[in-house]
Amino acid sequence: MKFFDCITAPSPRRVRMYMTEKGINIPTVQIDLRSGEHLRDEFRQINPDCTVPALELDDGTCLTEVYAICEYLEAVYPQPSLVGSSPRDAALVTMWNTKIEQQGLGAIAESLRNFSKGFKGRALTGPVGFEQIPELVERGRHRAEVFMQVLDAQLANNDYVAGEQFTIADISAMVFTDFAAWIKLSIPESAHNLSRWKDLVSSRPSAKV
Amino acid sequence: MKFFDCITAPSPRRVRMYMTEKGINIPTVQIDLRSGEHLRDEFRQINPDCTVPALELDDGTCLTEVYAICEYLEAVYPQPSLVGSSPRDAALVTMWNTKIEQQGLGAIAESLRNFSKGFKGRALTGPVGFEQIPELVERGRHRAEVFMQVLDAQLANNDYVAGEQFTIADISAMVFTDFAAWIKLSIPESAHNLSRWKDLVSSRPSAKV
Repeated sequence: MKFFDCITAPSPRRVRMYMTEKGINIPTVQIDLRSGEHLRDEFRQINPDCTVPALELDDGTCLTEVYAICEYLEAVYPQPSLVGSSPRDAALVTMWNTKIEQQGLGAIAESLRNFSKGFKGRALTGPVGFEQIPELVERGRHRAEVFMQVLDAQLANNDYVAGEQFTIADISAMVFTDFAAWIKLSIPESAHNLSRWKDLVSSRPSAKV
Repeated sequence: MKFFDCITAPSPRRVRMYMTEKGINIPTVQIDLRSGEHLRDEFRQINPDCTVPALELDDGTCLTEVYAICEYLEAVYPQPSLVGSSPRDAALVTMWNTKIEQQGLGAIAESLRNFSKGFKGRALTGPVGFEQIPELVERGRHRAEVFMQVLDAQLANNDYVAGEQFTIADISAMVFTDFAAWIKLSIPESAHNLSRWKDLVSSRPSAKV
């Protein structure tokens, strides 16, 4: 297998953290998003979506999308489980991971990519360029603020995001709360549950990668 | 279990189609999105995200997000498999389903919800109102057009979206191509592979629900 990473970007970091929790080591290639290496022909032939992370399997199959890559690795390296052990618990992990991707990570990306000069003409990921839309800067920020409250409420009755076990949903939520700093957004003081959880998960070795 | 549906909406349709393929019957409650029933306290207490589909389990757990609901049902009703039989195939189903949700269904929703008078002040799903942004009408439409080409290219070498078996990715793609009609977008004549696939999947009983 070969892992296509970008050390500065939040999406591949989720897979790096997942691999750290599992103790998985896979030969890794860095793709420099800042210089546009993901848009060049060489990488486009590996992943036509021009995104990282990507995982190339030994048969040449290229997996993209964080949750799909982790699902594959979970099947190959099942211990320790990071996806929930019963059908109900596994579905809750998928549910929370989806919410974090769409309402959390997606909201910050919306604000950042429509604001930063570095994303001019590249407001969305993928091979097609899209212009920035100024109204989305504030919309994305507000969505991310709302989602911090959603996570705080969920963590009032649960040690971890999807229940009583650390799972991939916590990895995604950790990256969400760290990615928020890119738009100068931090966990509000009133969000005691989210702060307590952040302290708890920040002590894990995976938080350092 | 209890299934919360809205007969006119694309997201719960994906779960209805999935249940039809499996032969699953679950007591169903219709939530009338047009009159705002999803935003009223009674449903908000079931699903604070104010979205359908939702699946209430017998222990009171409420599952939301289409893929999470289908993952749960797949574990309880494994036959016939709709998620791929090897780790590689299952990951490809998740990967394609994610792309269809974000790049396909999400694109049409972006165009529709920022255009239609019925979504004024409700440009995003969820309990918080967001104003329409006119630039997103065309952006969403263009993204959906691009994604039709992506699907057409994928179907050049595969009978079904994620490979040689009919899976939940085909259900999501069927709903994407039908939902496109809401913004008066149809499969382009040049997309021969996508048209061939659409004819194939349209003959299934699940396409009628």
